[in-house]
Amino acid sequence: MVSLNSDMGENFGIHSFGNDDALIPLVDTVNVACGFHAGDPTGMHETVTNVLAGGVTIGSHPGLPDLVGFGRREMKLFPDEAADIVRYQTGALVAFLKAEGGSLDHIKTHGSLYGMTSKDAEMAEAVAAVAAEYGVPIFGIPNSEHERAANKIGVPFVAEFYVDLNYRNDGSLIVARRPHATPVDEARERAVRALRDGVAIADDGTEFPIRVDSVCVHSDTPNAVEIATTVREVLTELRLAA
Amino acid sequence: MVSLNSDMGENFGIHSFGNDDALIPLVDTVNVACGFHAGDPTGMHETVTNVLAGGVTIGSHPGLPDLVGFGRREMKLFPDEAADIVRYQTGALVAFLKAEGGSLDHIKTHGSLYGMTSKDAEMAEAVAAVAAEYGVPIFGIPNSEHERAANKIGVPFVAEFYVDLNYRNDGSLIVARRPHATPVDEARERAVRALRDGVAIADDGTEFPIRVDSVCVHSDTPNAVEIATTVREVLTELRLAA
Amino acid sequence: MVSLNSDMGENFGIHSFGNDDALIPLVDTVNVACGFHAGDPTGMHETVTNVLAGGVTIGSHPGLPDLVGFGRREMKLFPDEAADIVRYQTGALVAFLKAEGGSLDHIKTHGSLYGMTSKDAEMAEAVAAVAAEYGVPIFGIPNSEHERAANKIGVPFVAEFYVDLNYRNDGSLIVARRPHATPVDEARERAVRALRDGVAIADDGTEFPIRVDSVCVHSDTPNAVEIATTVREVLTELRLAA
Amino acid sequence: MVSLNSDMGENFGIHSFGNDDALIPLVDTVNVACGFHAGDPTGMHETVTNVLAGGVTIGSHPGLPDLVGFGRREMKLFPDEAADIVRYQTGALVAFLKAEGGSLDHIKTHGSLYGMTSKDAEMAEAVAAVAAEYGVPIFGIPNSEHERAANKIGVPFVAEFYVDLNYRNDGSLIVARRPHATPVDEARERAVRALRDGVAIADDGTEFPIRVDSVCVHSDTPNAVEIATTVREVLTELRLAA
Repeated sequence: MVSLNSDMGENFGIHSFGNDDALIPLVDTVNVACGFHAGDPTGMHETVTNVLAGGVTIGSHPGLPDLVGFGRREMKLFPDEAADIVRYQTGALVAFLKAEGGSLDHIKTHGSLYGMTSKDAEMAEAVAAVAAEYGVPIFGIPNSEHERAANKIGVPFVAEFYVDLNYRNDGSLIVARRPHATPVDEARERAVRALRDGVAIADDGTEFPIRVDSVCVHSDTPNAVEIATTVREVLTELRLAA
Repeated sequence: MVSLNSDMGENFGIHSFGNDDALIPLVDTVNVACGFHAGDPTGMHETVTNVLAGGVTIGSHPGLPDLVGFGRREMKLFPDEAADIVRYQTGALVAFLKAEGGSLDHIKTHGSLYGMTSKDAEMAEAVAAVAAEYGVPIFGIPNSEHERAANKIGVPFVAEFYVDLNYRNDGSLIVARRPHATPVDEARERAVRALRDGVAIADDGTEFPIRVDSVCVHSDTPNAVEIATTVREVLTELRLAA
Repeated sequence: MVSLNSDMGENFGIHSFGNDDALIPLVDTVNVACGFHAGDPTGMHETVTNVLAGGVTIGSHPGLPDLVGFGRREMKLFPDEAADIVRYQTGALVAFLKAEGGSLDHIKTHGSLYGMTSKDAEMAEAVAAVAAEYGVPIFGIPNSEHERAANKIGVPFVAEFYVDLNYRNDGSLIVARRPHATPVDEARERAVRALRDGVAIADDGTEFPIRVDSVCVHSDTPNAVEIATTVREVLTELRLAA
Repeated sequence: MVSLNSDMGENFGIHSFGNDDALIPLVDTVNVACGFHAGDPTGMHETVTNVLAGGVTIGSHPGLPDLVGFGRREMKLFPDEAADIVRYQTGALVAFLKAEGGSLDHIKTHGSLYGMTSKDAEMAEAVAAVAAEYGVPIFGIPNSEHERAANKIGVPFVAEFYVDLNYRNDGSLIVARRPHATPVDEARERAVRALRDGVAIADDGTEFPIRVDSVCVHSDTPNAVEIATTVREVLTELRLAA
């Protein structure tokens, strides 16, 4: 079984990407922004309420403290600082889950915090320790420090694949400054190659093997709903849907 | 029994009032700032660790989202917004308590959020509902909306008395723009009158009856340690110390 | 002559209302958000560049320090604090104007800061003093403290009319929690009554006289472009267009 | 002549290092924090007023948008983003200078933005371009990208020396996570070696040549006043004082 997950609640104040309501019925689990790269208390509460009403589980999606950069500008943090911003944001989300009768499903770091923890062992372990405090899995890049840290700390690991981002040939992700639409047929092709053949294609054309436990669709991609629909179709066609 | 409580962890980044370590041994319970008016993730974690190591219990001390104004500038919020900023901040604190093996003792709102909820029934009830979600008491002003909301929602209420702030003759508190030292003998006199005689003196000289379950000392008062020592002495003299 | 002005640059990070480019050719002057209620440095620079390229003048649009609330939640500030946040934000904008060869046209406060200064004489004068420092007009509500302060301090005053907001019968504006579309025919009717007849209609149906130097269209109104087009038509029909 | 400069106005809300008033009479020019790593509008206004009253000139001291990290945690920014945060903050400061009859003396970046621009040519040039817009010098590390960018863009360059920080043997600065006192005799020795002999000593003991136009004392160093007094003495002894 392969799940479909999406980053949601990445609105801020009166600003919103507007895709969340249409995405909820398409996904298996949702990563909710927690206020540092996007999201605000009342918006988080609304997102939690809407997602739980859709029968979908919720993980935290903590980011770097950088609203203007949407958590996508790398910051040099000490491992304890990284862990503490994950604790802070995850705890904040859990308060809304508590209020609405839900519970935390997983932790998935956002943006550059995701990228930084995929490469830095100490930082990855500091964050995995937070997942251990909650007894939940870490979502991350297979064969990266995400996975090694989860194994070392002893929390489950969920290997993610992205159909709306480009990969380098070392398996790391290329995050653009601004979101842009991914052509649907390109997303379908990527999903099929990864889910059927276990292969991803880097931006230089080389193929590399990839293991997928969950496919991610970003809610800030302009055509996020179309892409999620396509991935859902591929999962069904390949009999991988949960 | 009357407890002594103090607002702590109101440092921000490299800035600190510097009183926390000396105050911990003097108090029974601590209200920890949660990042909106003061406090940052790593600072909160350090405060939680230090306070628990001192054998002192911890409540959340959520404030308005106003770092520059230290949460002391009133903001017009909808009741759901007020409740959601209390949920967000309390949840964030609970993550650090969870990491360090502690649990939430109470919720005490900070600054103007404390003042606003003491007068606005709807807002006070929205915040008391958060305390109900955690099954903890609300700290507040006796006979104010704090107490009425706690009773209505069904959470315990702890009546506070302040020795380092002035009162209006309606029992409401006068919060200065900047913290200033309170003369120790004045603080002692106030403590004795309130704890022995059940009387507070307003800034216009009138006396009014007051019920005290807990005395608060602010950690940003320059002579906070001296004042806390004095209150502790008065509590012992009156055989009220916990 | 009556000008058409619009609040722009109210994007934040990767979030945008998306109306700015289409609005620029329709308006005479633009009020640019300065980072406290919306806007970020690089976004402000882009907005300034785009607006100046369209041959349109630029004023500052300083707001309360409340990104989550979009500057629409009233905050109790001292007059000096209000003036200093206007100074800070206006100065920041002027840096981008300086970089792009433009100059400051006016100051127009945003949201609740606009509302607060329309009613509080001391605060209005503190803000008008900033306009005097720059030698530019204040935009505001006619017959309010905005106008009285401008006259007292000795800066020009530009009386605004809003076609996408409701008025109370005392001439004050009703700001909704979230933006919503105003029907175009309703906006047209309001513009015609105000510009041709000098009359505004309050939400209780009563009419009151209004003087108009400039009509404002909010860029966060979903149908802002249609409304600006309609107001532009009315200005042309009434031979009031600049 | 060698000047003595100090970073000031690095208070935030009710938090302050408390050294500014005593430092003003000791220095020739002051770098004022502009709100991103420290400083708030009303605090900036007070600092500007106090410094100008002391007959001391003022430059901007823009930092990374990271209040919690005091601008000392490196962030990956595009050169245009770095320049725009310098524009934004410098413009904000200039508004207070304008209000108080002062003018901008120079631009000196803070913390990690200082470190990043000392190594990254494109970023250093983007920031030097802002100094060109204001016609003021850039303060920075001699022989670094600070100096090369200033020369390339055509703005004056002021070479700084730090007596309260350690150097690596490549001339770059080591910034600690938290400020700590520098022994006064150590600061004196460093000042003498640099100002008399043109030599700095790296943390590994190696000496390297250094050119000094201005000595900097950080206001967040706990014993900043003692250190500034010492440097002032050394400048006088060596007949270098302005």
